[in-house]
Amino acid sequence: MSNRPVITLTTDFGNNDHFVGTLKGVILEIVPEAQIVDICHSVQAFDVLDGALTISQAYSYFPTRTVHLVVVDPGVGTARRPILASSDKYHFIAPDNGVLSLVYAREERMHVRHITSEHYFLQPVSNTFHARDIFAPVAAYLAKEVDTLKFGDEVQEYVRFSAPKPKAVDANRLRGVVLKVDRFGNLITNITPQDAPALFAAGAKGFKIVLGSHEITEMHSVYAEGAPGEVFGILGSMGFLEIAANRGAAVQLTGAGKGTDVTVVLGEAAAAGKGA
Amino acid sequence: MSNRPVITLTTDFGNNDHFVGTLKGVILEIVPEAQIVDICHSVQAFDVLDGALTISQAYSYFPTRTVHLVVVDPGVGTARRPILASSDKYHFIAPDNGVLSLVYAREERMHVRHITSEHYFLQPVSNTFHARDIFAPVAAYLAKEVDTLKFGDEVQEYVRFSAPKPKAVDANRLRGVVLKVDRFGNLITNITPQDAPALFAAGAKGFKIVLGSHEITEMHSVYAEGAPGEVFGILGSMGFLEIAANRGAAVQLTGAGKGTDVTVVLGEAAAAGKGA
Amino acid sequence: MSNRPVITLTTDFGNNDHFVGTLKGVILEIVPEAQIVDICHSVQAFDVLDGALTISQAYSYFPTRTVHLVVVDPGVGTARRPILASSDKYHFIAPDNGVLSLVYAREERMHVRHITSEHYFLQPVSNTFHARDIFAPVAAYLAKEVDTLKFGDEVQEYVRFSAPKPKAVDANRLRGVVLKVDRFGNLITNITPQDAPALFAAGAKGFKIVLGSHEITEMHSVYAEGAPGEVFGILGSMGFLEIAANRGAAVQLTGAGKGTDVTVVLGEAAAAGKGA
Repeated sequence: MSNRPVITLTTDFGNNDHFVGTLKGVILEIVPEAQIVDICHSVQAFDVLDGALTISQAYSYFPTRTVHLVVVDPGVGTARRPILASSDKYHFIAPDNGVLSLVYAREERMHVRHITSEHYFLQPVSNTFHARDIFAPVAAYLAKEVDTLKFGDEVQEYVRFSAPKPKAVDANRLRGVVLKVDRFGNLITNITPQDAPALFAAGAKGFKIVLGSHEITEMHSVYAEGAPGEVFGILGSMGFLEIAANRGAAVQLTGAGKGTDVTVVLGEAAAAGKGA
Repeated sequence: MSNRPVITLTTDFGNNDHFVGTLKGVILEIVPEAQIVDICHSVQAFDVLDGALTISQAYSYFPTRTVHLVVVDPGVGTARRPILASSDKYHFIAPDNGVLSLVYAREERMHVRHITSEHYFLQPVSNTFHARDIFAPVAAYLAKEVDTLKFGDEVQEYVRFSAPKPKAVDANRLRGVVLKVDRFGNLITNITPQDAPALFAAGAKGFKIVLGSHEITEMHSVYAEGAPGEVFGILGSMGFLEIAANRGAAVQLTGAGKGTDVTVVLGEAAAAGKGA
Repeated sequence: MSNRPVITLTTDFGNNDHFVGTLKGVILEIVPEAQIVDICHSVQAFDVLDGALTISQAYSYFPTRTVHLVVVDPGVGTARRPILASSDKYHFIAPDNGVLSLVYAREERMHVRHITSEHYFLQPVSNTFHARDIFAPVAAYLAKEVDTLKFGDEVQEYVRFSAPKPKAVDANRLRGVVLKVDRFGNLITNITPQDAPALFAAGAKGFKIVLGSHEITEMHSVYAEGAPGEVFGILGSMGFLEIAANRGAAVQLTGAGKGTDVTVVLGEAAAAGKGA
């Protein structure tokens, strides 16, 4: 076994400033043997749901005992609490604003503590950069195996929201939404195989996916099956329906984007040629 | 204690090319146990002052004996010298073009050496990529605890500039400048609490901050206190007056940017409604 | 010696999603002592040649036994094979689509294996993210010193292409192309000193470099020799002719870009004032 504790960073700080480097300095000063891993610093600024999606996609691939720092924190300096949420496998440190909601939805038996242990903080604590002054040092002490009890009392109430779920419009129509657009211009929706099994069945036919003025009538299992310029559906690696194009950007080909409605139409309603 | 020496990287190389990866290869070839940390590679291209600001904000959070590599080097290949600047706590390796100026201003007893030890360089030394051929290998050997004496003679003269300081226009007016715009669109000025104590006092009133055609009359202590669309002043984590907006980008709301004049008007002059 | 095996990552995944962080989690779960180094994640999306250029520029600076993961993979999920290519010094893991072509061109005695060892893969293997499910775990097991024999059989046929080479148009004209534009706006061509020795000779005169409607008549050995606004040629650190500007972006000054033809005209043809 390695004696190098892993600390991951997920933030909306971008890579254009000293912010992320500063966090790493704070951590290494306390726990020089840490292995610090960037998950992503390009969470949309102030967008707690985007942060929740990002950490929920990556955290479970890391080794047991990894400390995940997640900072999307528009309320920095207000009464919103810093929290430490621990499952059997991982620790999460974040502001209590819902950014861990999708982790709560997947991990059983989470214990959530309100971090109040000021002696672990960087003093003086600023009003504008708690990632540096509170979250990073707490992550570092956790990685040093300071007991979770030492950081504050357990709380039963904490902020969590549900990710937007697709809704049945009628017996044959399911309406979801584009959650995010990835680097390749794929549109990641919130529709899973559980929501629309018929759509994801091998050789699915007689469906359409309506996205703004676009009607998509092909599902592929592999990006490279798409014809040039074709927009199609695919089960993406995040576990959701993606609207994609082969070697192209569906975001440009469709004009859709984050927040665009996506309607899956099945059965006769699809054949009827009526819109969403 | 960890036996993993820390080397940080601050450059204007961006993240779109092989440049930064190459530096890391050069370092690990010499000192495989190094912990390499990116502070920032998005310093504005060729902008020595921006590089000086970036390293000055982050370096002091790192462990003692950290080696900080700082390369913003428009004069690469010319007679400008490579230097090694050492304080009691840190080493800095950089071109001698002023990029360490704000470090010199904060660290006492700096010893600056002209790096001439060609046997530590990657041969042949190119004219266009000294970060790879000179700075990275020297950082690696320093991290291996090669004595600073071995890299070249100490020099007394080296390039340093003063960061732009705010100036009193009259008894009630202080004129500063926007030093940079951060990821969130906050405008970081060069005005500190020492420059304008009355502005930063709790419950400050009777002031205005003039920024182009904008007049700002609120100071907040926390970003989230701002009303939607409101532009306000705040003491930021860099220690300067920031012009900010709550969950918004002051840079867009004001049309100001790096280099824009910022005038703080106090007392009766502010109430008089006259501009900056 | 360090016991921390180095794994490098070169992809077109960008830094805006959870993709790269997820790879790192997968690797650390298997080999927690790994030193993971990002070479570049901004390879142009789907652009195998750009990926080939990027890894070819950086790989040789890394320590012996480094495992280089290179994923630019528009054919993910199709029959294109995952391969492991090993030279005396390095391992490379990539899709068999030519992204290692420029490595093959430089490294002697490469042994290429078709990776078929499914028991090392993350199960279930998706159709859309083999970097996570196949390439990263294989890289991790290689870093743990699992024998290359274990990953699959050696193959003699694998995809390789030649990088575009400059061509002689006539006795005095050599036509090349812009391979890429770097962070500083330098235009990196495919023309080397071997292709046009007279151009790179000290004090070269009587030549011109034609780039669209621009004629360049100066070669400098150092960026800072350029006059303000001047566009000139220089031998860049990648070993190619670059079209550059001092503290400026040749890409903007010339309007040229990736794929633009570049013609070097030598001798009397240059003096004749005729175009390319």
